[in-house]
Amino acid sequence: MVMGVHAIRELLVHAPSRLLKIYTVRPSGDRKSDLLALCQDKGIPIVFSSLDELTKMAGSDSHQSFVAHVKGREFLDAKEFFQKIGDQENCLVLMTDQIFDPQNFGALMRCAECLGASALIWSKNRGTDLTPTAAKASCGASEILPLLRVSNLADTAEQFKKEGFEVIASLLDPKAESAFTFRFAPRTLLIVGSEGEGIQPLLQKKSDRLIYIPMAGKIESLNVAQAASVLLTLWKCSGGCSARSG
Amino acid sequence: MVMGVHAIRELLVHAPSRLLKIYTVRPSGDRKSDLLALCQDKGIPIVFSSLDELTKMAGSDSHQSFVAHVKGREFLDAKEFFQKIGDQENCLVLMTDQIFDPQNFGALMRCAECLGASALIWSKNRGTDLTPTAAKASCGASEILPLLRVSNLADTAEQFKKEGFEVIASLLDPKAESAFTFRFAPRTLLIVGSEGEGIQPLLQKKSDRLIYIPMAGKIESLNVAQAASVLLTLWKCSGGCSARSG
Repeated sequence: MVMGVHAIRELLVHAPSRLLKIYTVRPSGDRKSDLLALCQDKGIPIVFSSLDELTKMAGSDSHQSFVAHVKGREFLDAKEFFQKIGDQENCLVLMTDQIFDPQNFGALMRCAECLGASALIWSKNRGTDLTPTAAKASCGASEILPLLRVSNLADTAEQFKKEGFEVIASLLDPKAESAFTFRFAPRTLLIVGSEGEGIQPLLQKKSDRLIYIPMAGKIESLNVAQAASVLLTLWKCSGGCSARSG
Repeated sequence: MVMGVHAIRELLVHAPSRLLKIYTVRPSGDRKSDLLALCQDKGIPIVFSSLDELTKMAGSDSHQSFVAHVKGREFLDAKEFFQKIGDQENCLVLMTDQIFDPQNFGALMRCAECLGASALIWSKNRGTDLTPTAAKASCGASEILPLLRVSNLADTAEQFKKEGFEVIASLLDPKAESAFTFRFAPRTLLIVGSEGEGIQPLLQKKSDRLIYIPMAGKIESLNVAQAASVLLTLWKCSGGCSARSG
């Protein structure tokens, strides 16, 4: 199930074949929403329901009167992903560890998609899964971005190393290098953790290098989706910029 | 009123003199939270209340059992801000227009503080104000970052122009320049608008240049706090990086 006007609109535009059915409330009089009209144009079957039914279906009341039944999202395993990218360089894959807030998880998918990450990897055993709330917060990214839902992040990191990926972990640590002067490898697996829990020790050990964002101000840190936005921006810049003194 | 464990902790560390009183629930048995102990160490008066009373005080139930009564936040006007910065260069001020979601507003303050903006400006007449929810989402930034709460953003932009600031608006527009190759002026006033409403036309007209973040993927845009994180990162890099092709 996917909910929310924005997320469903992105699906309609970029992956309409994944939409099996739209559930929404019956429009009163002639006032039909743009989104409903668009669904009808694209020939997606529409079922009129009550707000309560929509809430029950989505498991949340943040559905904005639109819930979609979508074809099961296909996840890639690491092998399939390596086949997909072939010998492509300039490739960054985002791995998230222990993200428990589905809003943050959605925001991470959104910035990964918008800023050109090749995929996102998370563990089905640690942190939130791809829930309707996460999908909505991702504004459609969850349906477009290649996703790897794995059982063991450390093993997956190993597989990526064997394919020439440098594994870097975003971490406040004396050994961490400033993100503003960091030189990213052509193939990078970037690990970010939750604000509270961070990155599990085993996964830290698998990392080739550590990276941190120097804070200009007094407070401790950005939230994880903002931090990922900063890191992906710097990756796009290839680390080739000289930061202003804060 | 400021609420939430993280926001109050930041205040305790960076601006304890602003904390007049802490309201929290009485600890059961010997289990005293770190934050309560820290408040007692710093000699902040503590009042034990019920959860319901805390919710009433904060106007929200997201207080995590901690609500603080703080000395009224002082806002700067433009003249005071110009005096404060003197002839400082390398100065970016963030102006937000029509941000209605207090979470987004808080996240904007947080990234402005963390990434080295000199101040944040918003209108008291358009969009959300500095509510307890916004303050909490800012994780303490609302109490540290210089803030200008003005009645007219367009007039304020004019004042900044007279002080040598280049006014740039983040906007999807054919005339907008890519953020990845943008050369920021030594003094920059950066305007960001809400996802739905954007930037009001009058304020767009006041802008010297327009800037946009090219999207690597298929979906339309980052949320406003992620976009601000990207733009501030590129400003810190002085626009001197050559972006990877997405």
